[in-house]
Amino acid sequence: MFKRMDEILIEIPDVEKPDPNAAAAVQELLGGKFGEMSTLNNYLYQSFNFRSKEKLKPFYDLVMSITAEELGHVELVSHAINKCLRGSTQYKEPDATPLGSVKDARLSYHFLAGAQGAMPFDSTGNPWTGANVFNSGNLVEDLLHNFFLEVGARTHKMKVYEMTDHPSARAVIGYLLVRGGVHVVAYAKALEVATGVNVTKLIPIPSLNNKAFNEARKYEEKGVHTKLYTWSDKDFNAIDQIWKGTNPEDGLPLEVIKGVPKGYAIPEAPAVDEEFAPGISPEDFKEIANRLKMAGNIT
Amino acid sequence: MFKRMDEILIEIPDVEKPDPNAAAAVQELLGGKFGEMSTLNNYLYQSFNFRSKEKLKPFYDLVMSITAEELGHVELVSHAINKCLRGSTQYKEPDATPLGSVKDARLSYHFLAGAQGAMPFDSTGNPWTGANVFNSGNLVEDLLHNFFLEVGARTHKMKVYEMTDHPSARAVIGYLLVRGGVHVVAYAKALEVATGVNVTKLIPIPSLNNKAFNEARKYEEKGVHTKLYTWSDKDFNAIDQIWKGTNPEDGLPLEVIKGVPKGYAIPEAPAVDEEFAPGISPEDFKEIANRLKMAGNIT
Amino acid sequence: MFKRMDEILIEIPDVEKPDPNAAAAVQELLGGKFGEMSTLNNYLYQSFNFRSKEKLKPFYDLVMSITAEELGHVELVSHAINKCLRGSTQYKEPDATPLGSVKDARLSYHFLAGAQGAMPFDSTGNPWTGANVFNSGNLVEDLLHNFFLEVGARTHKMKVYEMTDHPSARAVIGYLLVRGGVHVVAYAKALEVATGVNVTKLIPIPSLNNKAFNEARKYEEKGVHTKLYTWSDKDFNAIDQIWKGTNPEDGLPLEVIKGVPKGYAIPEAPAVDEEFAPGISPEDFKEIANRLKMAGNIT
Amino acid sequence: MFKRMDEILIEIPDVEKPDPNAAAAVQELLGGKFGEMSTLNNYLYQSFNFRSKEKLKPFYDLVMSITAEELGHVELVSHAINKCLRGSTQYKEPDATPLGSVKDARLSYHFLAGAQGAMPFDSTGNPWTGANVFNSGNLVEDLLHNFFLEVGARTHKMKVYEMTDHPSARAVIGYLLVRGGVHVVAYAKALEVATGVNVTKLIPIPSLNNKAFNEARKYEEKGVHTKLYTWSDKDFNAIDQIWKGTNPEDGLPLEVIKGVPKGYAIPEAPAVDEEFAPGISPEDFKEIANRLKMAGNIT
Amino acid sequence: MFKRMDEILIEIPDVEKPDPNAAAAVQELLGGKFGEMSTLNNYLYQSFNFRSKEKLKPFYDLVMSITAEELGHVELVSHAINKCLRGSTQYKEPDATPLGSVKDARLSYHFLAGAQGAMPFDSTGNPWTGANVFNSGNLVEDLLHNFFLEVGARTHKMKVYEMTDHPSARAVIGYLLVRGGVHVVAYAKALEVATGVNVTKLIPIPSLNNKAFNEARKYEEKGVHTKLYTWSDKDFNAIDQIWKGTNPEDGLPLEVIKGVPKGYAIPEAPAVDEEFAPGISPEDFKEIANRLKMAGNIT
Amino acid sequence: MFKRMDEILIEIPDVEKPDPNAAAAVQELLGGKFGEMSTLNNYLYQSFNFRSKEKLKPFYDLVMSITAEELGHVELVSHAINKCLRGSTQYKEPDATPLGSVKDARLSYHFLAGAQGAMPFDSTGNPWTGANVFNSGNLVEDLLHNFFLEVGARTHKMKVYEMTDHPSARAVIGYLLVRGGVHVVAYAKALEVATGVNVTKLIPIPSLNNKAFNEARKYEEKGVHTKLYTWSDKDFNAIDQIWKGTNPEDGLPLEVIKGVPKGYAIPEAPAVDEEFAPGISPEDFKEIANRLKMAGNIT
Repeated sequence: MFKRMDEILIEIPDVEKPDPNAAAAVQELLGGKFGEMSTLNNYLYQSFNFRSKEKLKPFYDLVMSITAEELGHVELVSHAINKCLRGSTQYKEPDATPLGSVKDARLSYHFLAGAQGAMPFDSTGNPWTGANVFNSGNLVEDLLHNFFLEVGARTHKMKVYEMTDHPSARAVIGYLLVRGGVHVVAYAKALEVATGVNVTKLIPIPSLNNKAFNEARKYEEKGVHTKLYTWSDKDFNAIDQIWKGTNPEDGLPLEVIKGVPKGYAIPEAPAVDEEFAPGISPEDFKEIANRLKMAGNIT
Repeated sequence: MFKRMDEILIEIPDVEKPDPNAAAAVQELLGGKFGEMSTLNNYLYQSFNFRSKEKLKPFYDLVMSITAEELGHVELVSHAINKCLRGSTQYKEPDATPLGSVKDARLSYHFLAGAQGAMPFDSTGNPWTGANVFNSGNLVEDLLHNFFLEVGARTHKMKVYEMTDHPSARAVIGYLLVRGGVHVVAYAKALEVATGVNVTKLIPIPSLNNKAFNEARKYEEKGVHTKLYTWSDKDFNAIDQIWKGTNPEDGLPLEVIKGVPKGYAIPEAPAVDEEFAPGISPEDFKEIANRLKMAGNIT
Repeated sequence: MFKRMDEILIEIPDVEKPDPNAAAAVQELLGGKFGEMSTLNNYLYQSFNFRSKEKLKPFYDLVMSITAEELGHVELVSHAINKCLRGSTQYKEPDATPLGSVKDARLSYHFLAGAQGAMPFDSTGNPWTGANVFNSGNLVEDLLHNFFLEVGARTHKMKVYEMTDHPSARAVIGYLLVRGGVHVVAYAKALEVATGVNVTKLIPIPSLNNKAFNEARKYEEKGVHTKLYTWSDKDFNAIDQIWKGTNPEDGLPLEVIKGVPKGYAIPEAPAVDEEFAPGISPEDFKEIANRLKMAGNIT
Repeated sequence: MFKRMDEILIEIPDVEKPDPNAAAAVQELLGGKFGEMSTLNNYLYQSFNFRSKEKLKPFYDLVMSITAEELGHVELVSHAINKCLRGSTQYKEPDATPLGSVKDARLSYHFLAGAQGAMPFDSTGNPWTGANVFNSGNLVEDLLHNFFLEVGARTHKMKVYEMTDHPSARAVIGYLLVRGGVHVVAYAKALEVATGVNVTKLIPIPSLNNKAFNEARKYEEKGVHTKLYTWSDKDFNAIDQIWKGTNPEDGLPLEVIKGVPKGYAIPEAPAVDEEFAPGISPEDFKEIANRLKMAGNIT
Repeated sequence: MFKRMDEILIEIPDVEKPDPNAAAAVQELLGGKFGEMSTLNNYLYQSFNFRSKEKLKPFYDLVMSITAEELGHVELVSHAINKCLRGSTQYKEPDATPLGSVKDARLSYHFLAGAQGAMPFDSTGNPWTGANVFNSGNLVEDLLHNFFLEVGARTHKMKVYEMTDHPSARAVIGYLLVRGGVHVVAYAKALEVATGVNVTKLIPIPSLNNKAFNEARKYEEKGVHTKLYTWSDKDFNAIDQIWKGTNPEDGLPLEVIKGVPKGYAIPEAPAVDEEFAPGISPEDFKEIANRLKMAGNIT
Repeated sequence: MFKRMDEILIEIPDVEKPDPNAAAAVQELLGGKFGEMSTLNNYLYQSFNFRSKEKLKPFYDLVMSITAEELGHVELVSHAINKCLRGSTQYKEPDATPLGSVKDARLSYHFLAGAQGAMPFDSTGNPWTGANVFNSGNLVEDLLHNFFLEVGARTHKMKVYEMTDHPSARAVIGYLLVRGGVHVVAYAKALEVATGVNVTKLIPIPSLNNKAFNEARKYEEKGVHTKLYTWSDKDFNAIDQIWKGTNPEDGLPLEVIKGVPKGYAIPEAPAVDEEFAPGISPEDFKEIANRLKMAGNIT
């Protein structure tokens, strides 16, 4: 079971810099093979199917809790995409071709299927698919998979960061580089505990450190890369048997924090009339307001 | 942002009745076009992309909060599948063909890719895909979609219920018929508030009432079909402006409950050695236990 | 533009012999790569995109008119599938597991998604896809493709015929072997006219003659394999410049018939209450009847 | 069974304004999830699998007949795409790179797979798939689906209209907005008859009226939005029990017309030598002409 | 560039034990996500795109040469499938339903699309896809991927081995467990050389040794697991800088062998007349023999 | 079994002319339905499943040997793509947006998933799929398919040639037009031998001769279009019973050559630091060099 908060993980810069092709690039980090939908669903299904969870509680707790963080990442990347799309079109009468400004944008779904919002597709419009989920049931193999998956996810983030300088995309990717880096280390440490082999020495792959990215470095300077959260009111505390010692890259001590990090208000998304979204006129609003106040059934 | 609990929504009967093809059928309710992955992701993305959320807060709160319940449904269906698979094979040496008993099972992925666990695929092994997500951005259109989606999801549940009498499958589907029924009503009421048209009168579609299903009726008798939860510690309370009045089928008063329903312990899943899951020998456990107790880094 | 008739191409035997796996096999002839959906859509798109149609009118007329016949084939195969499914389940209360009899059927979609009806999928449940359409725009290349496509389609029909002796499936496939054979010859002749190369000599591929199939032979004995229809009230008559001379296999003279062949009543499909189809109770029928008789708007 | 006419539904403006990315956008209306391939095939399969058709004849007739209109829509959209592509390239010797002008066009298939013609793909090149077809067998549920599908289809048309001002695209989309609007009303009315609930009051969704689109308004001014055709010489007349009363938006009386609307000549598509289409030289034409005149078999 | 030999890697037992569902299971090892098509194509594309190959020659040589071995594995698994299918049907006249014996077989493509032969699909009939190829370009990341891929491929082999005792399947899988095990070690060693981290200590994953499988043990007893071939007449010899030292599981010294292992005759596959394969009658053979002896062109 | 050489089929011009969209177009010739992946895998699987190979040895040898050539074509096209991508980006610090120059490139996978290298996808990013493989088992039908496939492949090459004048793309496509033309003739001749029908007279389709392409003509002038190789040290020599007589287009005598054509060095691909490929620093190289020289195991 999950609970939701009306918050997101960071404050995303609210600049007016429409860039549909940047939005398309960031989609790779959402619905691509190595996007957040993949990390989320891999851990979600692994957590459902976990065997011998009592004996392997720290590993179980790790997979259970990281899943919840990934939900927040899916959310965050989606809002980054939305910010990149913001302002791509201007309202005009239909016959004045208000969506003409995005006719040449790479990813037409943003404008024809949706109303300039994120969707579970990758950067070319191929939908995310359940075929991206791996769950052998073998603990070591699943951990090895997750370690590799996080490494691949980090690489994709590095490349998208390099492809666009949109401030909202950069801010989100910088943060996710750090948090994804935490997951790389977490699975490496879990693999070490499970096998005794020092795979954390492989980190970072690629060898470029997160600190080479301005928007990531600022989070590492605050120690964001040393904290693992339980993402729960009271469960999953055994992750502290895995998340301990020091960060393999800079040697800072690791720390488990019960609960969740501080959240931020989810920004308002304005109406886009030329996309009929939300398509509620001032008169409609009034009538809706009346109906909302009614005591019970409408009819 | 989301939090997770180490609990599931109901207690699933723990019978030993291996039935791989029942498990395959239940997969339709997980990874099918009208499965829980679809309801989850439709609301997840609609919630990310919601426009004018301040003015339309009750609708926003509805979509935000139902998303969290759907996560619990994905979890619950997955455990139902796992229970149907439980005991499908017996341990033997590899040369004694321990998986021979499932060679003719319809869905080979359960045994060759996974270790007899749920996966984001439908009943024929086609993966769930992001193409199943709809989000026009237009409030009325998205509500209409969601109403239809829940109707379709309910119909699929009714059919899978009729296809297998596996107690675990039945228990889960019975509960989900009721909760899915709540979502049908919720979106119908939202649509009524948004448009003034009394679409709740269409309910139920198909016209067979949930009470015709033993495993659903027992939950309706407890009033489970009258409650909508906020799935949040403090947010999404405005759903009470939509979830009010009476249930269109039996006229019982509707009630919003802040927070989440009582949860149940997630059952232990035993090792399946013939699937190498989790593949940890008694000796391995000892060494792992030692490493878990270590103060910090291994190497 | 197209017109529709409330008729199908042959009378399908109405036997009670439920065989879900036969139905699954026949799906290959509907939604498979070489199924009727493929022949239909290849010719449909080629007809839309035909270049220099005035100068190449006989070829254009051929592609235009055969498209219409393929629509009737899609319809016919669908009804064959429906007949194979007829009687697969018996009505019982939901808790008596009325769909239990088909839990092990190969193609679960027939029972969980639909109500025991045909669908645009192949024999394993993979959906038909537009990727099956070929249209180079080059006349000779498209004709060569169509000739090959019809050869492949015929081979698949031969194999499905050999896989099931269900009388409805056999009757439909027997007829379609003959009509598909006509299309093989038609495209071979068109290719000959376009190039001067005697490709009809390749026929039949595979070398087994349709007359080796009882259900096909009976149609050839009636000369069904010598006739090509214009499938139009007044257009597409120039096909007689291609469909002329003799059948390459038995030397019978070929004949163009303006219009369509005699049709047969489409059989009634009974309600399947355990699938909620059509889900209309006797009381519902009465109310509907009243509403149908109303002068105008309901509200 | 179907018949074909050598006609299309409207006269498409024959302007020379090559716009490959406009063509790509219009593809969404052909092979997208809410494109004409989807409406066509949903109704096609629902008509095949219709249960209790005698008792529910007006509904059966509605689905049967609308299918035929959808075939004409698939055709019309395809020709709109072709017009947008017209003139995209100029003939040059291969070494002079005649297709260089479209190297950056969004949808490469138009030029590499086909010869600048429509295909069953959406605006990003993802093929149409049979997974887009819904057919529960439950009358009310299928009607609800169809109502929603038409609403979604209309929204996509509105957005593509706003994305391109290509006169051929606009003319076709304007007409289809009106005809699609007719189908929205038709399924709403059918749903009303089946359930007694006044869902026509929901119309239009999105709330912007078709009359806000110049190219649609001109058809509404001619009353095109009030007529439903039987698309048959003699069948499907019972649709007049559903299509009656007035249009919910402007109150004009509705009318059923037996048969089909007046059609227009399908325009000639010129050769595109740089695409080898149709690839017939003047000498080839002469030889073909001779062979077409031959009495019978070539060899 | 590649050369081919008319040989396969081992002698496959030629037993008459038709088992279509075993064949379906083995398809997972051919066209599944972790099948030989995946290992082949991952290394093939990585070899094409390898950067700084001069400086990294031993790694380049490793990827180049293993690719060639994978081609032999694709071939070998295909022949295993063919042996499992051998004898599934008996010749009868078409009306005697000769393919009726396989109507209930899980994978209909073997009988309807092909003529009882292997195909690039997985165990449920989902086609192999290029989306299974990973190539980041980063040496360490690609090696980590390959190590994980081989681990996953080995696990799948272990499971299919346990699912069927068909002698041909077992013989092939036993051999491939050993050779796949060699590739696991090879990529682990490459990763060690590249990073200095002792990942070979992770081997084997799952922890069950190949020697627990009779059909694998017999090859390990011959030392097959200690040899890496260059698969080339003269190139790729630098693999001996990586493939050196001892096997991490049993400590036997490793050896590079220039060229290829001894091959075996590819067995004859008999005609299957009920599948029209190859469809050549005795008379046809005679005519073909004559044409084969002709001096030059036929016409 | 296969052997590999460290060579490619021609020398590709090494110009600095980055053109990502040209690279995207050439991908159609690699991973498209009619790309080299398709020809390769069709012949590969047909060769595995060939029936009565002793009696039909010349046909078997043809399919076996051409497969090996196709591997070289897959390789060659991949290198053409790589050359088109060469220089698309310049190294800069991550925050200086080094991949910004390709943000608008059509095929984002080249930059986000890979490191500017070829991949098994088509020109729009849709992955190659095993559904592209045809193998009926019927000799004549498979030969007809292969003839058509090669015709289609040639047409696609002609169109990509016309779309880009990138010297590397042109050089490779010119060569492949000629070699693909050889395969067109080879399958036509095989079909003639198998059936006695003179299908070589259909050649060329489209009717434009390869000599109309500068980069193809130069190879035909060297007689490259008259030679068929056995691609083997000692096997597959019976192809000379099929490949004999004269070329149908220019009448030059055909010749079988045992073995393979002369190969060329595979060019070095430079590091692309902004893609982290290969991601090995000068210091790393030193350490790796040391480890490569070590006697055996690292740990």
